Amino acid sequence: MINQYIQEKQNEINPLIKDECQSLNLPERLKQPLIYAVEAGGKRLRPILMMASFEAFQPKSTDKIIHPALALEMIHTYSLIHDDLPAMDDDDFRRGRYTIHKAYDDATAILIGDGLLTYAFQVVSRSNQLEAEEKIYVLQQLSQASGLEGMIAGQFLDLQSENQNLQEEELNNIHQLKTGQLIRVAIKIGAYLGGATPPQIEALDEFGRYLGLVFQIQDDILDVKGNKDDIGKPVGSDEEKNKSTYPKVLGLNQTNEIKKHYMQQAKKKYDDARINQPRLLELLQIFGERTS
Amino acid sequence: MINQYIQEKQNEINPLIKDECQSLNLPERLKQPLIYAVEAGGKRLRPILMMASFEAFQPKSTDKIIHPALALEMIHTYSLIHDDLPAMDDDDFRRGRYTIHKAYDDATAILIGDGLLTYAFQVVSRSNQLEAEEKIYVLQQLSQASGLEGMIAGQFLDLQSENQNLQEEELNNIHQLKTGQLIRVAIKIGAYLGGATPPQIEALDEFGRYLGLVFQIQDDILDVKGNKDDIGKPVGSDEEKNKSTYPKVLGLNQTNEIKKHYMQQAKKKYDDARINQPRLLELLQIFGERTS
Repeated sequence: MINQYIQEKQNEINPLIKDECQSLNLPERLKQPLIYAVEAGGKRLRPILMMASFEAFQPKSTDKIIHPALALEMIHTYSLIHDDLPAMDDDDFRRGRYTIHKAYDDATAILIGDGLLTYAFQVVSRSNQLEAEEKIYVLQQLSQASGLEGMIAGQFLDLQSENQNLQEEELNNIHQLKTGQLIRVAIKIGAYLGGATPPQIEALDEFGRYLGLVFQIQDDILDVKGNKDDIGKPVGSDEEKNKSTYPKVLGLNQTNEIKKHYMQQAKKKYDDARINQPRLLELLQIFGERTS
Repeated sequence: MINQYIQEKQNEINPLIKDECQSLNLPERLKQPLIYAVEAGGKRLRPILMMASFEAFQPKSTDKIIHPALALEMIHTYSLIHDDLPAMDDDDFRRGRYTIHKAYDDATAILIGDGLLTYAFQVVSRSNQLEAEEKIYVLQQLSQASGLEGMIAGQFLDLQSENQNLQEEELNNIHQLKTGQLIRVAIKIGAYLGGATPPQIEALDEFGRYLGLVFQIQDDILDVKGNKDDIGKPVGSDEEKNKSTYPKVLGLNQTNEIKKHYMQQAKKKYDDARINQPRLLELLQIFGERTS
């Protein structure tokens, strides 16, 4: 049931994000890697969360959430492209395919990343589905979450943490910035545009915070236990780079315990929001137990 | 007189852009290179043009133009940081100092660039000086001009043009995208926020287009004839990278003729806008004849 929902949303998002990029008037040699980048697929977790959060309040129409959802996925995609660069995490594969700088070159990867980031803000600012005030809210939230105090600080601290022995608290901080901010803002923007009350937004924001942690912990677990074909990149790549991960800091058993604890906390916050619709909870469940 | 104006505006912009960055809550090792990047100074041409364009219609208060002007300079600064990377133009010096990736490292330069770009949109979207509709206009214009169809395509084509023999038309196209778009949008946003009529905005937009070309042509001339201490980077660096420049394509004499022609065209467009204030014209004059 929830898997079908995810599939439906992916089928909705994939052509739309490609169309947005196809519509650009670009030199062919620039458009090609752009399309390659947005076709890479992936789970589309962030836009799906945003849409599910919106639909918890507005089950009938999703028009209003489309542009923010596409923008968020563009920001996520840009961040992966830049993170994969040799100067950063230096990853050659993602989702079973060459990363952009391997398929093209570093300059192209830098520019496509810059372009997707800029385009995200453009897509929201010119949307014909949102009022000016709504656009401003979305742009403020997106730029804050993905900016220097958010995702970028997270990636910076993560790079600095290679070969360091971190404690759980520092690890939590890095992940709340690096992956948590975009997941959290997905839920928050969805709820806001859907018309949630301020207390509901607050509760869901906390739900999103725990969901982000659960997602990252599962990522770390998969890097230890996963299967290359499932996760699309070599297993053990965190280990190889000597990155601090939850299993390394806490051991696998305690990592699983903590994940369970955060899932329970998330559920509590979700109950606080008093929504008669379990979809976000089902998403929490499935992303906390995914195998890829 | 106009030099004093430029100096005054620089003295206004420099502390403000630094303050915006200082106010961020960042790890020290991330804040340091950020401040280094925005303190690099430079002419602040783009925000000055935006402010002068605004003041042509609103001579009394400049509050409304400050955040868009700072955002534009942040976007310009990010573009220089990324362009200077080894994977791109590979420049070690700018404005007489080490470029960010030389002073720090490539990862830091990529992240600081990403951060300044994102912050530009944040600074406008949260501005307390602008109405929601004004913010949206500014964000649309900035993201369009600096995006894939604008500045990024220009940088991409410029990189591809190394070792190519371009014709004047292709060279114009690259420069109108790479440097022209931001100069043009400076003028346009200034006029719009100042309350210019649509025909005035249109005429000034064309003025901005010619001004951008004049600026780039003078840049190329300085790369041939300039003095390292004046321009802050080695003379002849375009030649060394085998880049097409106006002097190379057209010879120095004809390059000077074309510059003169574009300056005349710019002046015509300025006259069409019917503004009782010569400051933008004086800026055209001085930037077209600058020695650094």
